[in-house]
Amino acid sequence: MAIETDTVEFVGGVRWGRTTGAPLAMVIHNKDWKNWTEGMSADPSYAGSIEPLTNVRPGHADLPGALKYSLSDARDVLERSSARETASRVAAGAVAKILLEFFDIRIGSFVDTLGGVSAGWNDDWEALAAIAEDSALRMADADAEKAAIALIDKAKSSGDTLGGSFVCFATGLPVGLGSHVQWATRLEGRIGQAILSIPAIKAIEFGIGFAVAKLPGSKVHDEIFPSEAGNALTGNVSRKTNRAGGLEGGITNGEPLWVRAAMKPIPTLMRPLKTVDLATGRPSSASKERSDVCAVPAASVVGEAMLAVELAKALKEKTGGDSVAEMKRNLDAYLESLSGRWSRI
Amino acid sequence: MAIETDTVEFVGGVRWGRTTGAPLAMVIHNKDWKNWTEGMSADPSYAGSIEPLTNVRPGHADLPGALKYSLSDARDVLERSSARETASRVAAGAVAKILLEFFDIRIGSFVDTLGGVSAGWNDDWEALAAIAEDSALRMADADAEKAAIALIDKAKSSGDTLGGSFVCFATGLPVGLGSHVQWATRLEGRIGQAILSIPAIKAIEFGIGFAVAKLPGSKVHDEIFPSEAGNALTGNVSRKTNRAGGLEGGITNGEPLWVRAAMKPIPTLMRPLKTVDLATGRPSSASKERSDVCAVPAASVVGEAMLAVELAKALKEKTGGDSVAEMKRNLDAYLESLSGRWSRI
Amino acid sequence: MAIETDTVEFVGGVRWGRTTGAPLAMVIHNKDWKNWTEGMSADPSYAGSIEPLTNVRPGHADLPGALKYSLSDARDVLERSSARETASRVAAGAVAKILLEFFDIRIGSFVDTLGGVSAGWNDDWEALAAIAEDSALRMADADAEKAAIALIDKAKSSGDTLGGSFVCFATGLPVGLGSHVQWATRLEGRIGQAILSIPAIKAIEFGIGFAVAKLPGSKVHDEIFPSEAGNALTGNVSRKTNRAGGLEGGITNGEPLWVRAAMKPIPTLMRPLKTVDLATGRPSSASKERSDVCAVPAASVVGEAMLAVELAKALKEKTGGDSVAEMKRNLDAYLESLSGRWSRI
Amino acid sequence: MAIETDTVEFVGGVRWGRTTGAPLAMVIHNKDWKNWTEGMSADPSYAGSIEPLTNVRPGHADLPGALKYSLSDARDVLERSSARETASRVAAGAVAKILLEFFDIRIGSFVDTLGGVSAGWNDDWEALAAIAEDSALRMADADAEKAAIALIDKAKSSGDTLGGSFVCFATGLPVGLGSHVQWATRLEGRIGQAILSIPAIKAIEFGIGFAVAKLPGSKVHDEIFPSEAGNALTGNVSRKTNRAGGLEGGITNGEPLWVRAAMKPIPTLMRPLKTVDLATGRPSSASKERSDVCAVPAASVVGEAMLAVELAKALKEKTGGDSVAEMKRNLDAYLESLSGRWSRI
Repeated sequence: MAIETDTVEFVGGVRWGRTTGAPLAMVIHNKDWKNWTEGMSADPSYAGSIEPLTNVRPGHADLPGALKYSLSDARDVLERSSARETASRVAAGAVAKILLEFFDIRIGSFVDTLGGVSAGWNDDWEALAAIAEDSALRMADADAEKAAIALIDKAKSSGDTLGGSFVCFATGLPVGLGSHVQWATRLEGRIGQAILSIPAIKAIEFGIGFAVAKLPGSKVHDEIFPSEAGNALTGNVSRKTNRAGGLEGGITNGEPLWVRAAMKPIPTLMRPLKTVDLATGRPSSASKERSDVCAVPAASVVGEAMLAVELAKALKEKTGGDSVAEMKRNLDAYLESLSGRWSRI
Repeated sequence: MAIETDTVEFVGGVRWGRTTGAPLAMVIHNKDWKNWTEGMSADPSYAGSIEPLTNVRPGHADLPGALKYSLSDARDVLERSSARETASRVAAGAVAKILLEFFDIRIGSFVDTLGGVSAGWNDDWEALAAIAEDSALRMADADAEKAAIALIDKAKSSGDTLGGSFVCFATGLPVGLGSHVQWATRLEGRIGQAILSIPAIKAIEFGIGFAVAKLPGSKVHDEIFPSEAGNALTGNVSRKTNRAGGLEGGITNGEPLWVRAAMKPIPTLMRPLKTVDLATGRPSSASKERSDVCAVPAASVVGEAMLAVELAKALKEKTGGDSVAEMKRNLDAYLESLSGRWSRI
Repeated sequence: MAIETDTVEFVGGVRWGRTTGAPLAMVIHNKDWKNWTEGMSADPSYAGSIEPLTNVRPGHADLPGALKYSLSDARDVLERSSARETASRVAAGAVAKILLEFFDIRIGSFVDTLGGVSAGWNDDWEALAAIAEDSALRMADADAEKAAIALIDKAKSSGDTLGGSFVCFATGLPVGLGSHVQWATRLEGRIGQAILSIPAIKAIEFGIGFAVAKLPGSKVHDEIFPSEAGNALTGNVSRKTNRAGGLEGGITNGEPLWVRAAMKPIPTLMRPLKTVDLATGRPSSASKERSDVCAVPAASVVGEAMLAVELAKALKEKTGGDSVAEMKRNLDAYLESLSGRWSRI
Repeated sequence: MAIETDTVEFVGGVRWGRTTGAPLAMVIHNKDWKNWTEGMSADPSYAGSIEPLTNVRPGHADLPGALKYSLSDARDVLERSSARETASRVAAGAVAKILLEFFDIRIGSFVDTLGGVSAGWNDDWEALAAIAEDSALRMADADAEKAAIALIDKAKSSGDTLGGSFVCFATGLPVGLGSHVQWATRLEGRIGQAILSIPAIKAIEFGIGFAVAKLPGSKVHDEIFPSEAGNALTGNVSRKTNRAGGLEGGITNGEPLWVRAAMKPIPTLMRPLKTVDLATGRPSSASKERSDVCAVPAASVVGEAMLAVELAKALKEKTGGDSVAEMKRNLDAYLESLSGRWSRI
């Protein structure tokens, strides 16, 4: 949650507020760095200046990472697989969001559940996101938030941690991003990879998700109607439901895209789990690194970022072009061709 | 489900039962082809020989695909986004499985739920898969299967369709496939994309999946113990639980990998849904293509294939090498290095 | 040179003369196949039905390929690295050319030198290609062709082989394909890889190529002038020279793109070279597979194909879009924006 | 040429002298930056603080870049396509070289010709590189260097610029890197792209290169003999010539790899070329940015870097593995299998 208060230094790729085509290079200066100047130094002369981390934490990359890379100190794994890595994703996502905003495509997120406490929400996406932005836990439901805070306090006192789930969405998307033609172009897969690649995310569902497994087709698929008011984004059709979450056949259909992801509890517990010591193979207790109780609100922001990056790529594939103006010109001409489709009626 | 009875012709890439390094080209001859020789011919002289499909089906790629690609006939979309496309995935997956079997890595699957009917199952993976192979619905639970068959019959008579969920797993994996170091190397993301790219799959979860959102860390993470019997695959540790589904930090940990996916009901209903006519934009009823009631058992086989392909890639990244013998030599040396790690004890 | 008389069967990806988005799958039936039904069969029961090839040919992939892949029979290497593989490139290139022709972009080639005999040529590209098409050796110079034929006859009688060089070009390209912004987006590199990946190609140069190393800047760079007649493709400038070969900074500049490549002589000599026997490591004579004396005319056709594929990709990156109509609409709008740039003058 | 005196700051990816798997992030602080803090600032409030560059230089990306990206100021293009960009390649290449050195693979380069002056050289690669390192122009021939210096002085006084050619090589490579099996895996293509992507490189040749076009097969292909002294890298064969430049069929054959590239003269002339003004389309003189006369010695260092990066990738593909120790273990076992191949003799 500290992500938002860090500052970013642009060291390449931007001139006078515009990207130049060079790699967009941003450095996020870690405020905690002063405590690690030797322990994490690039300089080999500091080797051994802090103790190796060997009490590998269950649920983290510590042990499989150390075995894979043949390491006697799991800290190299820990530092890279920590949530700190996601700060760079949020920075990249912020750039993707700026691009999307030129096209009135907006990305948002909120916390859905935390430790089993569910926040109430509807599909008024942008309003929800505004409420969530003002909430400490990014929940758009004050009562649920209160209950979740109590749960966090309780977990803290018992040395435990909590997970939860969050929802990310995008509004303003035109029909026709992504494609059904190849397995690797389908957006469920691409967005799925992007979000499942966030540390600790173990599940994802698009639209009503797992509920599709239980309902008959007549209660799952979103019927299609002419749009009397006109809606260029959908190709001038309307739907009364959006159970598909804005994606049919791996392609945006012009409805809001929404996706829910589940995050496991933080693996660093103050009442540590049983493990083995990497140095000896003998039973041990997991390392107690400095840690929070719950990272779900922060993860929802990372989810937004990954969604924004993937949608920006899909948009660019559709429009081509080498400037925002050219992208817009191409997208506008495409949307106009959709509008003209049934104009003879 | 007819996939298994089709035959594959190898037209390139294999000599005397061994791959040659040329693209492995397989042709699956569609038995239904004789009814489509003109309607789906490559030859432009047959253009217009069958009617365009314009009553686009909600829940399918028909409408977004036709708008995206500026088509007046949605058949081009329908044919490519149909389940027929997945036959090629099963063929590719079969090859990946052969490679994995050289390493005693086995892939299997079974149907978990169908239309809301849940099959009972445990974590005796290979036994489950054997039972599922002998079941018409690929369920490892005869009672649930009976209930599911009744549900299918009922859906058929009411012109409706059904979805469900399935589980895919892999046993025999060594610790250290995949990596935490980059977002795109994490296996949850890679396997997630592979399986979410199967048509109609709307959700996926690894291990206990969405349940991680509700439980405290002490009930989610799998504690680690020395392996008294020795287990080279895990690096000589053991776990009493496998809630993580065999992946920690995007890396295999040597435990069985398991993943569950949800499939929506087939979008082609005999009691058709409301839609618009692509030619006119006016209200219409969705096309009634020849279709089954439920595709979940077939989808579980496709899920196996995608899992096999992704794991074969991850294995090859770890071992390098240009022959099975070289891959095995490299993997064996790696596993031996893990075994030697704590031998001084 | 037999490439053009083979026939291609489309087994996927085309309906009524239009691509469907499914992989475009073509099978080229090899007329010589009837002699190899057992020796190259996919069926393991034919293993050993022909003798292994062990007298590896210098200059071919035979030896490094057999060592890399741990093979006792170099035939698997020979067959894949033979010129037959390039038939598939020509087929793919033919499709790319059809796409480019919608944009009035034309690709051609001709043989520049053969065994040291140089054909005269100028920069009247399309006329040259027309002459070359009617020439047995694809040389646009009848006298040189006669001399080259004599040289081939002489090489044949002495059991030797010949190499040569060819030129590929593209006309009608708009300014702005490719990009200077990343190393992997620069067109010299991309086209360079495409053409250097053709078997036996050992060198490539763009425009005047190696001559740039000797001349001063004032004799190398192409000065820029306003285009009085107007030329949308260059952005309304003109140049009196085209030493750069149509590429500046990795980007097309609207002038014809031209590139020259050198092909080594065929490594299969009737008067065989010294080698070692793969089975024993002992001195031996290289295998005498059925072979031509010179493959440069055929290679020039393959060069066209690779150039077409790479330019089609670069064009699609610029225009985006999901149909030829959309690509054209986007490109036309871009060219119009270039024309309007200085219209206020 | 100032590249070597710059310093690099590691801001990520290294701990105590070892890579951690996180992106290896290096910042090269440009000493000239203090003169550009406003003109090249990321901050939009400095927009317009220096004049736009509109007198686009022939031979540079200036004009095609500005048209492609719809820019009114070509400086964004100039800065990215300048030789400064190649400093990052040299930094990346230095890391690749360190990896290769663990395997006794060494990369070097020297200047072959400059403005038409040819340096003499033989195939004693490492000795040549040592001499070149001590030469101001990176030529391994003192007489040629003296003549080249005189030529540079003359070009400078006449306001002109010079190009040249350089040779890059690698020694210690094992047979079997790269592959003939796919067009994109062949090393001539991959290394070709890497080096042709360096700004101003217009031609490349492997081994004797364009000379293969003139010579008969018997004078081009390198005959193969048993290696009496033993040579694990080649698989225990020897060759008396290395015209192929160490690559046969896109694969290393264990001989030194050598490649020559041609660089065009710097496009910024003190006696400027004719051009058009980007703002008006009217005739103009090209901009006179601060510039050197010849960049070939610096380019040879960039060529080394690109060669090192590509070979490091190819090595990693062969060995797999996740640590230098594992890579070495796998490579050693492979080389041992080659040595054992003919041991029964």
